[in-house]
Amino acid sequence: MVDLEKIISLCKRRGFIFQGSEQYCGLQGTWDYGPLGVELKNNVKRAWWRRVVYERDDMEGLDTSILMNRLVMKYSGHEDTFSDPMVDCRKCKKRFRADHIDANEKCAEGDKHDFTEPRPFNLMFKTVVGPVADESNVSYLRPETAQGIFINFKNVLDSTNRKLPFGIAQIGKSYRNEITPRNFIFRVREFEQMEIEFFVMPGDDEEWHKKWVDARYNWYVELGIKPENLRKYEQAKEELAHYAKATVDLLYRFFPDRADEDKQYDEVEGISNRTDFDLTCHTKGGKLVLNDGREIPNTHAINKLTYFDHKTNKHLLPYVIEPSAGVDRATLAFLMDSYCEETVNDSTRVVLKLNPELAPIKVAVLPLKKNNENIRNTALKVKNELMKKSGWRTVYDDTAGIGKLYRRQDEIGTPYCVTVDFDTLEDNSVTVRDRDTMAQERVKIEELQTYLSQKLGNV
Amino acid sequence: MVDLEKIISLCKRRGFIFQGSEQYCGLQGTWDYGPLGVELKNNVKRAWWRRVVYERDDMEGLDTSILMNRLVMKYSGHEDTFSDPMVDCRKCKKRFRADHIDANEKCAEGDKHDFTEPRPFNLMFKTVVGPVADESNVSYLRPETAQGIFINFKNVLDSTNRKLPFGIAQIGKSYRNEITPRNFIFRVREFEQMEIEFFVMPGDDEEWHKKWVDARYNWYVELGIKPENLRKYEQAKEELAHYAKATVDLLYRFFPDRADEDKQYDEVEGISNRTDFDLTCHTKGGKLVLNDGREIPNTHAINKLTYFDHKTNKHLLPYVIEPSAGVDRATLAFLMDSYCEETVNDSTRVVLKLNPELAPIKVAVLPLKKNNENIRNTALKVKNELMKKSGWRTVYDDTAGIGKLYRRQDEIGTPYCVTVDFDTLEDNSVTVRDRDTMAQERVKIEELQTYLSQKLGNV
Repeated sequence: MVDLEKIISLCKRRGFIFQGSEQYCGLQGTWDYGPLGVELKNNVKRAWWRRVVYERDDMEGLDTSILMNRLVMKYSGHEDTFSDPMVDCRKCKKRFRADHIDANEKCAEGDKHDFTEPRPFNLMFKTVVGPVADESNVSYLRPETAQGIFINFKNVLDSTNRKLPFGIAQIGKSYRNEITPRNFIFRVREFEQMEIEFFVMPGDDEEWHKKWVDARYNWYVELGIKPENLRKYEQAKEELAHYAKATVDLLYRFFPDRADEDKQYDEVEGISNRTDFDLTCHTKGGKLVLNDGREIPNTHAINKLTYFDHKTNKHLLPYVIEPSAGVDRATLAFLMDSYCEETVNDSTRVVLKLNPELAPIKVAVLPLKKNNENIRNTALKVKNELMKKSGWRTVYDDTAGIGKLYRRQDEIGTPYCVTVDFDTLEDNSVTVRDRDTMAQERVKIEELQTYLSQKLGNV
Repeated sequence: MVDLEKIISLCKRRGFIFQGSEQYCGLQGTWDYGPLGVELKNNVKRAWWRRVVYERDDMEGLDTSILMNRLVMKYSGHEDTFSDPMVDCRKCKKRFRADHIDANEKCAEGDKHDFTEPRPFNLMFKTVVGPVADESNVSYLRPETAQGIFINFKNVLDSTNRKLPFGIAQIGKSYRNEITPRNFIFRVREFEQMEIEFFVMPGDDEEWHKKWVDARYNWYVELGIKPENLRKYEQAKEELAHYAKATVDLLYRFFPDRADEDKQYDEVEGISNRTDFDLTCHTKGGKLVLNDGREIPNTHAINKLTYFDHKTNKHLLPYVIEPSAGVDRATLAFLMDSYCEETVNDSTRVVLKLNPELAPIKVAVLPLKKNNENIRNTALKVKNELMKKSGWRTVYDDTAGIGKLYRRQDEIGTPYCVTVDFDTLEDNSVTVRDRDTMAQERVKIEELQTYLSQKLGNV
């Protein structure tokens, strides 16, 4: 299996992902998606939205603000407890996450670090909103999209007439001031999430938790992740967050070169049964229960976040199942899982065998001879008509010979190449080449879109 | 024409747009997009991306980080000059944007405000990145997506082999700490932009500026904006920012109830000829020229942001045309422009005559009788099959009588309603109702997708 270094190099060279602020030596924990990366990431998000919102009858979408009233983070518990343990080295003055210390790392001021006791470091980025810079105007960059869903529960209920069970899905950026960001886009400070809060009747929560674990596992596999690289990991009682009744993590094999097999796998998504913890935090007259048992009554919320059950004629707080996925991690998993090296005619062919739905470019139209004006113009015309009819990302490329152009498209996962040659000018046909089999077929231009639609499906 | 108040009310009631953090009395200048709003806004973004990236041969996409190295904002000039004039009232202690003062607003502590002299207020939100909270780790929430494009110019060039002219397009959130956010989603603190930086040979800039003004104007009109509500406004010499050679603003009629006709129109997009100002700021060994003439040499950038011209064998700094649009403002313009009230059978029908490409829901499938299990199941089946085949956002609704369901779909802009009735169970046909004409047609279920595809086009 491919290791991270190869993927990082491909990503930089071909324009998937660049280091953030590279022109100024970077900003640690930030990454920029290039021309191909933005397409791939958008396709991952669209494939998620399609499966969890469009293809179901029990979901609504939402897109809430990253900056929120500070009270949201007070009553969610993030202000008090969203922290990692941090240590300082007394010699070199560097800071580390206490649970991520590498025993082999040498201190710059001597062989070994001299660490302080761990203390909590709040991971939220702080800013001030409005023209007066005082404590009352503090706000945070949200550390998760989830809270935006909870505080809008009543707005969604009122505007859609939904009945339980139903869910709310959201995609958006979140921020965590990680002490030690690392491993490419795996642990970063600015990232994107795809989160669902699925609201159910108390008592139905365990069944729905199982259903969502299966649904989410299947999503990755249907989009091409090999089952042997994806694990379900059920957290033990003592690992669970205090608000969770059960959590199953989906672990992808991000680190295949680690010696310990269990350490090769790390989280790409978590699916939690959070009971009514969150709605209780944010409902008018509710309370936040901290992990040490302390209770903070909610004296600010303006609406009851309850659901009226017509069967029992009672208002109740629904339970919540939360499938929470990282967009960047999912994107990385799809990149790693689709990467292949094959030997073809004694040379190495690199192919991203991405599911066509995820491929940044669906079809590349290539002229056999770029110096022939007829061939070039025909190729551009084929490309533009195909794009208009299909809506697919299609590209034209004439910056190399045909063999090299094929390899370039293989390396970025383009499922089909269409070649315009001298015969095309006579027979109005083109050669269609399949990325995975490299088989070539001659197709009439007028039948090209139908032919490719059948191959590509609804991408 | 509809005024803002009616749109705000519709948006809240039907789940397009809610006040941000409403559950905690809001956070001024932030808004949350509800189930219909997120679809509409995504469709606006997709329609833009499709036209400016997919349908052209000279564009690449990009998605860069919101948090950037502080030096980006130093050398772009934002740290020094991105400010609005602010005044304080000595009596009531409130702050105002000096150029937005409403002469009729009364001071809470007496009839008239007693204002201080204006002073500059930097509009960037500040935060600290990393575990050490000192000045050297300051970062800003980007005030525009543009800078992420400029600093990646070389990365995109190297990974794509592009030749001039070509452009880079980006959609993403930006942040401005507006002193007085107002007018719904028109002036906000967290917003989304769709920006293009189009790089051309110096000398070709004026021609490309004109082309882009036309292309962008046509985009709005093709998607349904009435030409009488959209104006091109060419900034006079004395209005231009010091780095701009020419700027044309596209103004939409956001405020139709203002007495002064000119004040009814305000900016939805600006198209500027920025020359080589930005690449000069950020290139290695370049310099920032401030509006007072001061020059700040760039001593930090690591790459030359030049382009090698094979014709002259010289490295040069391209000129830049920047079409910069607000996603939220465009969304608001499409909402306002499509809003109609019609009298039908003595009652008022509210219709959003949105272009189908923008409509949040493409097709609603409605059962004539929800108590009939056959009808209900057939409707659900029709909905799910149609969705799977087409990829469209389709919904099922049975929470009211058919007349009311039609009106509900009209009000949110759904182009087609499909009704499943008793005859359907016999003849496998459904009734398709057109939003705008209200005409109804009987269509075989097996032909439904083709029928609607022809009507809806490639949405």
